[in-house]
Amino acid sequence: MGPGRLKALIDGLFAIALTLLVLDLPKPLFSHHLTHDLLHQWPSYVAYLVSFATIGIIWIEHHAMMSAVRRIDRRFLEISLLFLLVVSVVPWPTALAAQYAREAGEARPAAVLYAATMLCMGLAFAWSWHYLDRHPDLIEATAAPAFPVGVRRALLGGLAYLVAIAVAFASPLASFGIDAAIAAYFALSRSGVPGLLIGSDTVVD
Amino acid sequence: MGPGRLKALIDGLFAIALTLLVLDLPKPLFSHHLTHDLLHQWPSYVAYLVSFATIGIIWIEHHAMMSAVRRIDRRFLEISLLFLLVVSVVPWPTALAAQYAREAGEARPAAVLYAATMLCMGLAFAWSWHYLDRHPDLIEATAAPAFPVGVRRALLGGLAYLVAIAVAFASPLASFGIDAAIAAYFALSRSGVPGLLIGSDTVVD
Amino acid sequence: MGPGRLKALIDGLFAIALTLLVLDLPKPLFSHHLTHDLLHQWPSYVAYLVSFATIGIIWIEHHAMMSAVRRIDRRFLEISLLFLLVVSVVPWPTALAAQYAREAGEARPAAVLYAATMLCMGLAFAWSWHYLDRHPDLIEATAAPAFPVGVRRALLGGLAYLVAIAVAFASPLASFGIDAAIAAYFALSRSGVPGLLIGSDTVVD
Amino acid sequence: MGPGRLKALIDGLFAIALTLLVLDLPKPLFSHHLTHDLLHQWPSYVAYLVSFATIGIIWIEHHAMMSAVRRIDRRFLEISLLFLLVVSVVPWPTALAAQYAREAGEARPAAVLYAATMLCMGLAFAWSWHYLDRHPDLIEATAAPAFPVGVRRALLGGLAYLVAIAVAFASPLASFGIDAAIAAYFALSRSGVPGLLIGSDTVVD
Repeated sequence: MGPGRLKALIDGLFAIALTLLVLDLPKPLFSHHLTHDLLHQWPSYVAYLVSFATIGIIWIEHHAMMSAVRRIDRRFLEISLLFLLVVSVVPWPTALAAQYAREAGEARPAAVLYAATMLCMGLAFAWSWHYLDRHPDLIEATAAPAFPVGVRRALLGGLAYLVAIAVAFASPLASFGIDAAIAAYFALSRSGVPGLLIGSDTVVD
Repeated sequence: MGPGRLKALIDGLFAIALTLLVLDLPKPLFSHHLTHDLLHQWPSYVAYLVSFATIGIIWIEHHAMMSAVRRIDRRFLEISLLFLLVVSVVPWPTALAAQYAREAGEARPAAVLYAATMLCMGLAFAWSWHYLDRHPDLIEATAAPAFPVGVRRALLGGLAYLVAIAVAFASPLASFGIDAAIAAYFALSRSGVPGLLIGSDTVVD
Repeated sequence: MGPGRLKALIDGLFAIALTLLVLDLPKPLFSHHLTHDLLHQWPSYVAYLVSFATIGIIWIEHHAMMSAVRRIDRRFLEISLLFLLVVSVVPWPTALAAQYAREAGEARPAAVLYAATMLCMGLAFAWSWHYLDRHPDLIEATAAPAFPVGVRRALLGGLAYLVAIAVAFASPLASFGIDAAIAAYFALSRSGVPGLLIGSDTVVD
Repeated sequence: MGPGRLKALIDGLFAIALTLLVLDLPKPLFSHHLTHDLLHQWPSYVAYLVSFATIGIIWIEHHAMMSAVRRIDRRFLEISLLFLLVVSVVPWPTALAAQYAREAGEARPAAVLYAATMLCMGLAFAWSWHYLDRHPDLIEATAAPAFPVGVRRALLGGLAYLVAIAVAFASPLASFGIDAAIAAYFALSRSGVPGLLIGSDTVVD
């Protein structure tokens, strides 16, 4: 089986997960101080930006990985669905994080839940890299050296959220700051997966 | 007509059905015991996982079926839309199941509705296999032997929900357990459709 | 420009419009008579089925039309977006129809709005056929004879809703019945556009 | 890397952004004067039409731009995601504009927010044109002369919303009028990007 339809499902699901985030941007009803109310909602905007950026970066790196996939088997489809399960769930902890970021007792479980979701996303992504690394018949031979790097990079990304979980018990806001920092790090560090992220005419999807 | 656009509609609709499930994960407003409230919602998480897994597995098997389709006719488009109708409706019984699973009198209709939806999905899927089995001009000749197996497998899956419906009258929770078990069975039993689920370079979509 | 990306936008938008309908299926909160409450909502189910069927059939016929399109120009993109505007709006009159079908004074505007939306959909679709009919350089030469038939069929479908609008002033329920009958007629009458709806190996999308 | 999957993500996200707008069309509950209530909501319909038209036109022009893209690099993916971030957010200011357009004090921030969102969309789009203009290895050589024109056109479109922002402080309704006029201008002025908007058999996507 070629990977064409898996790519279509992935792109559709990412597009929807990215867009559903907007449904949780609060729209104040019957506001009499709209400017004030909108400014007061700043945690929602930060949460929106961080989640959009995190999902967006994951899409870019997943796209890079998939561009080297020649064909797929059923087990890889299942691993991919597990990964998509976590992606699709992101709007939920995002909304909780936006709502409870400033509330003393409730910010902590919201921060733990957010970072735990991202941890699962990183682990599921690392599993995808790892499975393809172990099944070189599924990928382009020229891209094979990139896969151990991909495993490490996804694991590193996922496990960084362990720090965010631990910090959440001391300071939920600092934990959200770490979530944002992880997204920023992966946006800026692009040399991680040699041979995949640099475009080439030979890899067409 | 080639099946390209039907596949695009299917992938889009599955991606949305999978993602819309997240809208029904409850986000407690003004919670003062967020950890407790989140844990209390466990039926929502179980329902999310079971529905995501069920739709995901159906997508994998439908993908396998479609990879053998060479061209389509209008009747097959209509059968496919009927199948998609059932897929698109799944978030609704899922939300009802999550909400009423623990309520004495109301769990029963919720469990019946959930299993009945899955029964319809299985029947519509079986009809797709059956129609293609009867119209070998629409499919790859090499894949033809797989289609009677596909019919049986989809029928078996659908009819298993009859048991879930019957059990719901005695114990709604047991009925939901059967729903989960059916998903697990189909996730694990992958030898059902020989020649389709094993990847090959010649089948490209 | 090739029609590839327009098809992708169309398929995505149809998939979402079909799936968003489920968000308006009411989920009774705190019901103590769930079976009764679910049965009481029957207009929602009928509205869901009729709208899903109508959009689905329109997608099939639009798909048939597009399979003969070789390339597109900007004006055709604009006409297509107008058509998609109407498709995307369908969940709104559907929800209103489901909610007000049984209320004496309010069923009438709901029925008029529903039929008027479908009228606009038919007119926008007829315009698409007509534009392509007038620009034979955009379509496959072999399919050209089908386009005047397509114009007539889409116009007939659209204008049939004028009857539904008129009837709504006497009996809103009869008006909804006409909406359902129109969908049924187009589902069953498939000989309307010769050469397009019959699959062929030469038309690949 | 070929641009195929970026196009798929873009088309999916645009399709969803266009369709999610319908979720904010108000459905009056328990109305006893449905016709009156529906007519009273006219700002929602205007906002729906203007936002749908604006996003639709942007999609057409972005489509034209992408039809000349031969391959992409990671930086272009990031710029594209920034652009999609703004597109995905549009339903939010649209709903606020519809809700507050007629309220004395609250219309002003709603109008500013709407125009500011569109300003960001224009700037992100201009950045996309500009980046490709500076990296001619990413685009078809024959289309290169169109890219400086594209930059200017997108900048002009974006900066026109500065006027809408300024006018909002004097008259929010006039500001919304300018938003609609900008959409109308770009719908009608199509000679802006020579060589891209005219279809050709050689550019197939």
